[in-house]
Amino acid sequence: MATKSAPIAPAAAGAAGRIFNFNAGPAVLPLPVLEQVQADLLNYGGTGMSVMEMSHRSKAFEAILHNAETDLRALLGISDDYGVVFMQGGATLQFAMVAMNLLPPGASADYIVTGSWAKAAYKEAGKLGKVRAAATGEPGNFSTIPSQAELDLDPHAAYLHFTTNETIHGIEWKTEPIPPAGVTLVADMSSDFVSRPVDISKYGLVYAGAQKNLGPAGVTLAIIRRDLLARVPANLPLMLDYKVQVENTSLYNTPPCFTIYVCGLVLRRLRDLGGLEAVARANAEKAALVYGAIDQSGGFYAGHARPESRSLMNVTFRLPSEDLEKAFVKQSEAEGLSGLKGHRSLGGIRASIYNAFPLEGAAALAEFMREFQRAQG
Amino acid sequence: MATKSAPIAPAAAGAAGRIFNFNAGPAVLPLPVLEQVQADLLNYGGTGMSVMEMSHRSKAFEAILHNAETDLRALLGISDDYGVVFMQGGATLQFAMVAMNLLPPGASADYIVTGSWAKAAYKEAGKLGKVRAAATGEPGNFSTIPSQAELDLDPHAAYLHFTTNETIHGIEWKTEPIPPAGVTLVADMSSDFVSRPVDISKYGLVYAGAQKNLGPAGVTLAIIRRDLLARVPANLPLMLDYKVQVENTSLYNTPPCFTIYVCGLVLRRLRDLGGLEAVARANAEKAALVYGAIDQSGGFYAGHARPESRSLMNVTFRLPSEDLEKAFVKQSEAEGLSGLKGHRSLGGIRASIYNAFPLEGAAALAEFMREFQRAQG
Repeated sequence: MATKSAPIAPAAAGAAGRIFNFNAGPAVLPLPVLEQVQADLLNYGGTGMSVMEMSHRSKAFEAILHNAETDLRALLGISDDYGVVFMQGGATLQFAMVAMNLLPPGASADYIVTGSWAKAAYKEAGKLGKVRAAATGEPGNFSTIPSQAELDLDPHAAYLHFTTNETIHGIEWKTEPIPPAGVTLVADMSSDFVSRPVDISKYGLVYAGAQKNLGPAGVTLAIIRRDLLARVPANLPLMLDYKVQVENTSLYNTPPCFTIYVCGLVLRRLRDLGGLEAVARANAEKAALVYGAIDQSGGFYAGHARPESRSLMNVTFRLPSEDLEKAFVKQSEAEGLSGLKGHRSLGGIRASIYNAFPLEGAAALAEFMREFQRAQG
Repeated sequence: MATKSAPIAPAAAGAAGRIFNFNAGPAVLPLPVLEQVQADLLNYGGTGMSVMEMSHRSKAFEAILHNAETDLRALLGISDDYGVVFMQGGATLQFAMVAMNLLPPGASADYIVTGSWAKAAYKEAGKLGKVRAAATGEPGNFSTIPSQAELDLDPHAAYLHFTTNETIHGIEWKTEPIPPAGVTLVADMSSDFVSRPVDISKYGLVYAGAQKNLGPAGVTLAIIRRDLLARVPANLPLMLDYKVQVENTSLYNTPPCFTIYVCGLVLRRLRDLGGLEAVARANAEKAALVYGAIDQSGGFYAGHARPESRSLMNVTFRLPSEDLEKAFVKQSEAEGLSGLKGHRSLGGIRASIYNAFPLEGAAALAEFMREFQRAQG
């Protein structure tokens, strides 16, 4: 039985006693990136200082920022019609900024409420302007993504906001919703950003907290179509004004330099791995292992998401009882599979398997799931 | 002459080719802190993961956050009447948040305008409510801190805001201004925070960007007297609401975990060094070396700050010509003294000598100044 076998992770995970980290965010980072950070830590590129100690106006940091932006643009095919900025405050601050910047008095914005995060965005914008729910998955406990036909869309909306992946509920859009003609599409991509190719030209604004696929917590990326900046009202606080951020290329004040540097290393690695097509294939392969273990369990493991809405980033499922769930988490932890406890609002198990999570880790979890079930048998 | 002597820094600065870093912020960090970060990078305290990869709700990170707060409270003697929070967005976001949270409609706030940063705080708050300049040093190009008698204070002000140290101009308050009875004192302490003891009980709110004395860029610390939270208006955006931040102990959403961890190491080190009295003595000793070189130069080096207003953090001075200033920066850089160019808005030379800047670096600069002057002889 599982608890008696040798721990799965320490050998499989390789260097330095690292475990398989299923955290939902902050989340696992690529080991080669961490090793590079470690090597650079006291003296970056012969500058005689750490990236943490560098002026944000220095040539060395400007190159770091420029390269991060260039790599992101290459990965997602972002045209010059868009500004790319690194901000602070997480997606939660973006929830407010979207409305402050793009929702004029008298106008209304549509929100597709697919889970906790979409709902939070909807509520926060509602403090600042008029918002409408174009759909809500709450009656089904957020287990499915609505179809295009199920959306009740306002043809005059200032924008249509959706959340590409619901980190807590484990559901994900396969293709974006289609807004009415002339309505700007806005997306919170925090938890599946750069996990697959996306046609950015369909969007007016995309934002994402870094701490899932992109880097450490403390930086939020936004991609903004420049023509939208004309909508930004005068006299917003500087840090809350997309126009100020874009015009100053993230350097109006001191940005989170070190965090941006780590994101830059992650983005460079994604290019080196073959870009987002290759990344998406690897993510699908990992997810198939874990969903396979659910589907082959004869109902012992019950997935929360409806199959057609399953997230490739966050796999959520329940066991027959809460006691078994507790035992599952405890035993998995002992085997070096860490962070599998579901979000407190949903319960159950959540396996977050972002870009940097290794295939061997997904295989180890699937194997553990089979062993755990067998031991209960 | 200076350019022909052996470089000053590499030997003196010690390990790994590090130079003397006079950057104004982000700025030099203590080498032992960086070495600890490097050692912990792949596997923090046996957790099997980096601090960058850890859930912000994990026991390991909660301990990091708790210890950072505890050490800060011990260093500054902060009572339980105050909340301590780690936020994002820099002092520039605080400029807006102070007014959003503490300046009700119809009320007015007083600002003491001592330099670029105080002026920025004043302007930003002015977008959100009524503000008054209680004094301005602009006619004297911000070279002096006003005396108490020079302040034109509103006895009914919602608060009195001042900036303890002007990073660009190099002037610093020796003791805080005294507000009228019942008026709350608010301070931007970004560039001299934890450089000396401060009686926090005199303040209603203190905030500070980390990237001078406290840690890497990307975190902003605030110390808020809890009774002021009653003033916070309902329905502010979550990330802009001091009440939400204090009630959730910086964990409403994902904080900049890694940056907070580095700040925590810096704070622990300040305690280990003997606390802020000892830190202040060391800072005074360093500043005396550089100001001494100015005062002994017979006017070759002209300090910007009036002597009684001199900052112990940022030493600003001019040379007889801009050409000489350029030569000074170029030659100093070649000798491993980096970051001495003054801020673009003021010109001249600026030597930032925060807590982590070593005494040997200040001595090396003073020596370089004498040699440079002699070579012009």
